[in-house]
Amino acid sequence: MSRFFSTKYKDLEAYVPGEQPRDRKYIKLNTNESPYPPAPLVSQRVEEESHLLHLYSDPECRTLTEAVAARYGLEYENILMTNGSDEVLNFAFMAFCDASHPAAFPDITYGFYPVFARLNSVPFREIPLKEDWSVDLEAFRPEETVFLANPNAPTGRYLPPEQIEALLASHRDRVVVVDEAYIDFGGESCLGLLAEYDNLLITRTFSKSRSLAGARLGFCMGNRALIRDLNTIKYSTNPYNVNRMTMAAGLAALEEDSYYMENCCRIVRTREKTATRLKELGFCLTESQTNFLFASFPGLRGEEYYGKLRKRGVLVRHFGLPRIREFVRVTVGTPEQMERFLSATEEILRETKGTLL
Amino acid sequence: MSRFFSTKYKDLEAYVPGEQPRDRKYIKLNTNESPYPPAPLVSQRVEEESHLLHLYSDPECRTLTEAVAARYGLEYENILMTNGSDEVLNFAFMAFCDASHPAAFPDITYGFYPVFARLNSVPFREIPLKEDWSVDLEAFRPEETVFLANPNAPTGRYLPPEQIEALLASHRDRVVVVDEAYIDFGGESCLGLLAEYDNLLITRTFSKSRSLAGARLGFCMGNRALIRDLNTIKYSTNPYNVNRMTMAAGLAALEEDSYYMENCCRIVRTREKTATRLKELGFCLTESQTNFLFASFPGLRGEEYYGKLRKRGVLVRHFGLPRIREFVRVTVGTPEQMERFLSATEEILRETKGTLL
Repeated sequence: MSRFFSTKYKDLEAYVPGEQPRDRKYIKLNTNESPYPPAPLVSQRVEEESHLLHLYSDPECRTLTEAVAARYGLEYENILMTNGSDEVLNFAFMAFCDASHPAAFPDITYGFYPVFARLNSVPFREIPLKEDWSVDLEAFRPEETVFLANPNAPTGRYLPPEQIEALLASHRDRVVVVDEAYIDFGGESCLGLLAEYDNLLITRTFSKSRSLAGARLGFCMGNRALIRDLNTIKYSTNPYNVNRMTMAAGLAALEEDSYYMENCCRIVRTREKTATRLKELGFCLTESQTNFLFASFPGLRGEEYYGKLRKRGVLVRHFGLPRIREFVRVTVGTPEQMERFLSATEEILRETKGTLL
Repeated sequence: MSRFFSTKYKDLEAYVPGEQPRDRKYIKLNTNESPYPPAPLVSQRVEEESHLLHLYSDPECRTLTEAVAARYGLEYENILMTNGSDEVLNFAFMAFCDASHPAAFPDITYGFYPVFARLNSVPFREIPLKEDWSVDLEAFRPEETVFLANPNAPTGRYLPPEQIEALLASHRDRVVVVDEAYIDFGGESCLGLLAEYDNLLITRTFSKSRSLAGARLGFCMGNRALIRDLNTIKYSTNPYNVNRMTMAAGLAALEEDSYYMENCCRIVRTREKTATRLKELGFCLTESQTNFLFASFPGLRGEEYYGKLRKRGVLVRHFGLPRIREFVRVTVGTPEQMERFLSATEEILRETKGTLL
């Protein structure tokens, strides 16, 4: 910390992204990326657009926003495109929370929520997940702005829209942000609730199901007034938040929608097969509706399992947090990658068999 | 404004980017873009990288940061790459200003400074430029974090490093941010002062001299402690702030450095020729060290001149601010574009001759 750093950030603990090691080639199952590359049209459009990079991008992001609106049956005014969904989540903490309007979210969820809250000096409350890892929806207080990852990460568990609707209905005076980063892997979106609830904001990302993690593209959907507020923040922060190449990539991805939706189906099939195999081996798994599995093996410490996989060239994610330290989060890759992960796992189980508690 | 919007932003006036009209094809001299496209290597590298978009970008931005460090004779730890220089300017307002550490900047300067200050609830003072549009360096108070665009926008005027050094020396307890967005068009950078002054932060952009406005790439240079602070903010805001394609474009631009530096020379030559012609026509001009001219014609209202140019298909920028409303800011384009701008201007002068005050 320099002697100039504002004391308001002295306790800020930054978000720690999944590791991106450069020492060797890993099977990378640690950051929930899609194992499938972008559709060829993406590269073509990006290349075309790259010749115009000397010109600013459209700050209104109009063409892409209209395409997203059409895809989801909404209007231009219901959508805001952002630099990854992290950006719109941060905007939501800025716009809809403050010292007198605290935030609330589950204790086990996307690790960026508490970071955004601290960054914006927003008081927050972490609601413990129930024993079965489901969200305790009754615990939210009417004065709290709610952030719900649905499906949740890293547990993979999912709430059907009916349950979220109950929360929205009893929570009319505060915004409920439903972060649907993983919704394309099996869950049902809350999209249908937008018409009825002006307190619902849905965030999405192109990073997972649309193979654009490296392009940074996210968006949110909500009623016009919410989107206007978020635009005020955007134009006071980063008016050109979506660059030309990312816009072109996003548009091409929407044109090739069926390619990506098929990839999602593939990932779901691979997830189910992998889950079955892990259960056969004796693992405990949550019910995942995402592109990752959340798994633990009785007696095998999560950190040890993570380390042993790493030594074998397979990278998964381990969180050193109290309730989930015995788990690892494993991104669903290609069938081939999952075979490699499973054989490494079998090897580890054989090796540690005698020493398991 | 929705009923959920935090009252802390109720008076926020967002930044208004230069217009990007879609109604017809203009000669676009309104947002200080380079008239020269990116080097061919940029498109090639961007296309290659686009096949890897399903993977997150390196949050450390290591390869590009090292290349920038090498280009400017600094270390990796002295550099932070950002999503345009707007992002690092916002980070600097966050990190080095707060309720008890106000900001200060000239009254006529980059219009985003007051927006960032308001966004972050930072009190600020605007120091009137002197009559000759030079910055009143003595007016800054020791407790103020200073933001200086050098050369300044939209006046184009420039302060030599000796004068900024005097400010740095008398201002040891607060950071002085020198925004060198336009430094490649003739001014001398404050780079040489970095070794001596731990309170100096220099920001730069690839938008202007490196023809990457549409890619969003900026960076800052400063001592390690300052960069660490800004990294804390970055990792609490947007760890993947520079996407894969922009990284690839930035690296390619550095490899083709001579192409861009030659373009800068061309722009400077075109600027000087255009300035001479405008003076011959009777315009008043500031001494510009940038890729734009700041011009007024006695008796011709700035807004009227802007409007008449617009009607003729030439877009320049007019600011409706008290001290500069008689001026327009004209980006220096290609020689051909400037010919078109000059003939439109001559036409307007002939037309309005009789009516001039």
